[in-house]
Amino acid sequence: MPPELLRQIVEDMIPFHKFLGVKVDRVERGRIRLRVPFREEFIGNPLRRAMHGGVISMLADAAGGFAISTALDGTSQTLATIDLRVDYLRPGHPEALVAEATVVRTGSRVGVADVRLFHPSSESTTIATGKGVYAIKKLKHPRAGSASE
Amino acid sequence: MPPELLRQIVEDMIPFHKFLGVKVDRVERGRIRLRVPFREEFIGNPLRRAMHGGVISMLADAAGGFAISTALDGTSQTLATIDLRVDYLRPGHPEALVAEATVVRTGSRVGVADVRLFHPSSESTTIATGKGVYAIKKLKHPRAGSASE
Amino acid sequence: MPPELLRQIVEDMIPFHKFLGVKVDRVERGRIRLRVPFREEFIGNPLRRAMHGGVISMLADAAGGFAISTALDGTSQTLATIDLRVDYLRPGHPEALVAEATVVRTGSRVGVADVRLFHPSSESTTIATGKGVYAIKKLKHPRAGSASE
Amino acid sequence: MPPELLRQIVEDMIPFHKFLGVKVDRVERGRIRLRVPFREEFIGNPLRRAMHGGVISMLADAAGGFAISTALDGTSQTLATIDLRVDYLRPGHPEALVAEATVVRTGSRVGVADVRLFHPSSESTTIATGKGVYAIKKLKHPRAGSASE
Repeated sequence: MPPELLRQIVEDMIPFHKFLGVKVDRVERGRIRLRVPFREEFIGNPLRRAMHGGVISMLADAAGGFAISTALDGTSQTLATIDLRVDYLRPGHPEALVAEATVVRTGSRVGVADVRLFHPSSESTTIATGKGVYAIKKLKHPRAGSASE
Repeated sequence: MPPELLRQIVEDMIPFHKFLGVKVDRVERGRIRLRVPFREEFIGNPLRRAMHGGVISMLADAAGGFAISTALDGTSQTLATIDLRVDYLRPGHPEALVAEATVVRTGSRVGVADVRLFHPSSESTTIATGKGVYAIKKLKHPRAGSASE
Repeated sequence: MPPELLRQIVEDMIPFHKFLGVKVDRVERGRIRLRVPFREEFIGNPLRRAMHGGVISMLADAAGGFAISTALDGTSQTLATIDLRVDYLRPGHPEALVAEATVVRTGSRVGVADVRLFHPSSESTTIATGKGVYAIKKLKHPRAGSASE
Repeated sequence: MPPELLRQIVEDMIPFHKFLGVKVDRVERGRIRLRVPFREEFIGNPLRRAMHGGVISMLADAAGGFAISTALDGTSQTLATIDLRVDYLRPGHPEALVAEATVVRTGSRVGVADVRLFHPSSESTTIATGKGVYAIKKLKHPRAGSASE
């Protein structure tokens, strides 16, 4: 899928992404980097000012799915998450969060992606890792792109 | 922890829960039921009007963590998710989502919870299942409750 | 697949099952119960005489995969595990181990199974739970059955 | 723990490891590399001559746990697997299998390790990846080492 189309789908066509503010930082075949700027509403533990695990798992799921999308030819397929695992290694700080996802396996039916999440202020400090397994399905109306669910 | 305090923490003290509208349906020792009313912003796949996986994983994480909280004595502990796995069995519809979580193991350091997610309009149709592992930590300022992160 | 054929595949055609002594206790559509009698060689922690986690994960994987097999029509498909998660709730004792697996989702390409593991001496005491995701593939030589790998 | 003691525990003190032939290839603080020579009995799918997933998950569990052990001071602790996830990327061939495990997080109570599994004949071709979460417990009889279960 052309990078510009992918960006449009991720940023503009998916209501939950717009709601939270998800942006595409970089796309190449087999890899994607998504980012979500910090908002006070993302806090999960007010005592420690730590980000809610749900922000992290949402970004992991989205990045993993769209990494698979970058490796698909054409726009006639849609993805659905089969399973997602997130390992939380450190509390997320009140800062932008980045998810970098890489395809580790892709076939005609199932794709698997690895995701690493960190803050841009300290790229090598991993906040969480994710692993997602996605079903690849043929779209009946191919025009509309590979939105994840 | 007293149910009323737990409800207050879940619904009022955690910004991400307030942002998304998470409510406590029921609490008992070892079990909790959380609910999030539907909003258009929760859509992840506009073609199929399916809920974003991130809404599901957020509610699974929160329900699993607070199920563990119901089984802790006192309010001097805090929880952090170690890992979360979500299996997505069916697309989520544009409806309220419920997560029912049960403690499957709890010790002084680690708790494990099972979560089942469904729509209230069809309680027996499982949308997703989750399994969360949580670290139980002593709070330095015990006054403030067991907010999850 | 006919139960008698399934039993033969599980018990006689899979070298690793023969090596460890895996037996079929019960089969019905969508469910299977496997058992492995205890051997001293299964100990993983000699101090606590606890069973090695590898015996538990092997039986979980096998039971999950063959539960999917019971739900497939014909013998022209083969399964490969995509991912397996095992949660270890209690140490396994030096006794026979049973795995009961149930299909939670099955399509033409991917099947998901839940597994519960316990000792026959205390059926309701769960030792571990497993969740496996399996790819369903067409066999080129349909004659040979749906051996798991 | 001294490398020589660790090797002795892995290779000689754990019956399931002796039964399958698990060897220590390399140890350093925070990393371990285990190997199991191939045996015909490890086949899980005789049609494709693929290794049984249970051999892979056993080695992943063992490597992850002992990677954590390398990072513990002294020999007064024991480990128990809390949960293990294995992603199977390619069929395992009838060859020796190697698991390389790295600690990704370790505290006083919980350790997390990443594992990569491959054949020594093609080190960069990943057969499977694993992620294990382990509880770290104080031994009552510290003399006896940190056997995993």
